[in-house]
Amino acid sequence: MGLGGAEPGPVAGLTAVRVRLDLGYDGTGFSGWARQPGQRTVQGTLEDALARVLGLAEPPALTVAGRTDAGVHARGQVAHADIAADRWADAGPSAVRRLARLLPPDVRVHRLAPAPPGFDARFSAIWRRYAYRVCDDPSQGDPLARHVTLWYRSPLDVAAMNEAARRLLGEHDFAAFCRRRDGASTVRTLLRLDWARSGPALAEATVVADAFCHNMVRALVGALLKVGDGSRPPGWAAQVLATGVRDPAVPVVGPHGLCLEEVGYPADAGLAARATAARNLRPAPAARSPASGPAPA
Amino acid sequence: MGLGGAEPGPVAGLTAVRVRLDLGYDGTGFSGWARQPGQRTVQGTLEDALARVLGLAEPPALTVAGRTDAGVHARGQVAHADIAADRWADAGPSAVRRLARLLPPDVRVHRLAPAPPGFDARFSAIWRRYAYRVCDDPSQGDPLARHVTLWYRSPLDVAAMNEAARRLLGEHDFAAFCRRRDGASTVRTLLRLDWARSGPALAEATVVADAFCHNMVRALVGALLKVGDGSRPPGWAAQVLATGVRDPAVPVVGPHGLCLEEVGYPADAGLAARATAARNLRPAPAARSPASGPAPA
Repeated sequence: MGLGGAEPGPVAGLTAVRVRLDLGYDGTGFSGWARQPGQRTVQGTLEDALARVLGLAEPPALTVAGRTDAGVHARGQVAHADIAADRWADAGPSAVRRLARLLPPDVRVHRLAPAPPGFDARFSAIWRRYAYRVCDDPSQGDPLARHVTLWYRSPLDVAAMNEAARRLLGEHDFAAFCRRRDGASTVRTLLRLDWARSGPALAEATVVADAFCHNMVRALVGALLKVGDGSRPPGWAAQVLATGVRDPAVPVVGPHGLCLEEVGYPADAGLAARATAARNLRPAPAARSPASGPAPA
Repeated sequence: MGLGGAEPGPVAGLTAVRVRLDLGYDGTGFSGWARQPGQRTVQGTLEDALARVLGLAEPPALTVAGRTDAGVHARGQVAHADIAADRWADAGPSAVRRLARLLPPDVRVHRLAPAPPGFDARFSAIWRRYAYRVCDDPSQGDPLARHVTLWYRSPLDVAAMNEAARRLLGEHDFAAFCRRRDGASTVRTLLRLDWARSGPALAEATVVADAFCHNMVRALVGALLKVGDGSRPPGWAAQVLATGVRDPAVPVVGPHGLCLEEVGYPADAGLAARATAARNLRPAPAARSPASGPAPA
């Protein structure tokens, strides 16, 4: 609509609104979060849909709290993007509804709103919570939950797994459970790692850390399953941790049992300080995926 | 193994053991329960696997509590089969474990054991409980549960749906909500039909009846959604019921939101009497699927 000489020009696009996205996806049909040429990825699918819904000339760059691998799911993923203020003013209010129609059913944006000052989806986060679900008797598996559950052939001793898990808590160099990357620290603080029975033949791990390095949850779970099925003693996982090198005896379990459930942020006043501190601890190039999106810093 | 002249001949097969199967399946990849030539069905898949695991020359005939349509799921389905006693003695004890390896992951036999005297999976049942799940805001849908949830564009008034549902309870001719079949009674006793919120933008119906006729749950839910979205008043469903004829204004909702959760049976002493009474009420040819399995009587 022409309003006379005060028509906003391209320069108005320089004023950007940082928006926070809360989203979930079924990782089955995606080659992971990070955009890769020729692959169907969550980031690529979302950025393309956002460009269309917000009327942007180019897909906006999304920064995400947890760069999930191929086949890993998310219920509580968080991302941010910087959107030209004029486009946001026009298209923002109806964006969630329009995204629900435009996006494929295996990814949903639940919320899309301006973020508080200082918010950074990746660097403001203080913890990530993942769940890993295992059925330890394939005859008892729920076919309706098979996309989100690892079926394991041996019965698991949950108490032994919890004993092993307790010894991994705290700040450590988790290099033994990570795929190594040059220049990236593998020091992380494991805040919670425990197992509980949540149904017949169903065991569920809750894993919380300040952040995770690549493959870390799936390698931790792989080590604990070896304890749970009796092939290793409860002390084994801590021994592996202490060596500080990737141990081929630790299996990296399948991605489909893993789900990013929630990301924790400080109260609004602490967002910027946390982001600055986290950036200093984990420099921007420490991408957890080979084909990373734009540098989050 | 030759044991001399006492080798059991084919006559030994005449002594049969009736076994009860407890099972679950994801209906997405099946053309329903009932075996049909050239189609992938739950019955066909199970009967073929049972023949192999029990070493039978021909697939055993399964009788089922709820003949689900294409795309409908089951968590608590029950079936029975009569198995030659010698084959059961040999292969029965390991059958559940072997079925877990042989069956595709979208169907699971959780239990397989000799049934109490008089047991008939279909005619001994005194009630069937189904769940129907609806998400009434597609932006809030859980992608990981989309295979078991109908996404509905309008917000639903659960109180209005419950008001409408209450007027349908009890014994009625449900012809208005059934696909008619010659010679089959459409009189059923609806024991429970109510809705509850079970998550954000998620409403779940619990539907219990002595038995259901074809399409009945999906038509009942379809009528109640029209009440829930405000396009019909709460009294409408009971008005449709009273007409006794199928009303084209009642939509039959999609199969993927529907799941057979549980089948109820009387205590063992009442099994045979219940089966006799049910057979008299609903004669054997009253199949609820065009390509029915063997007559259950």
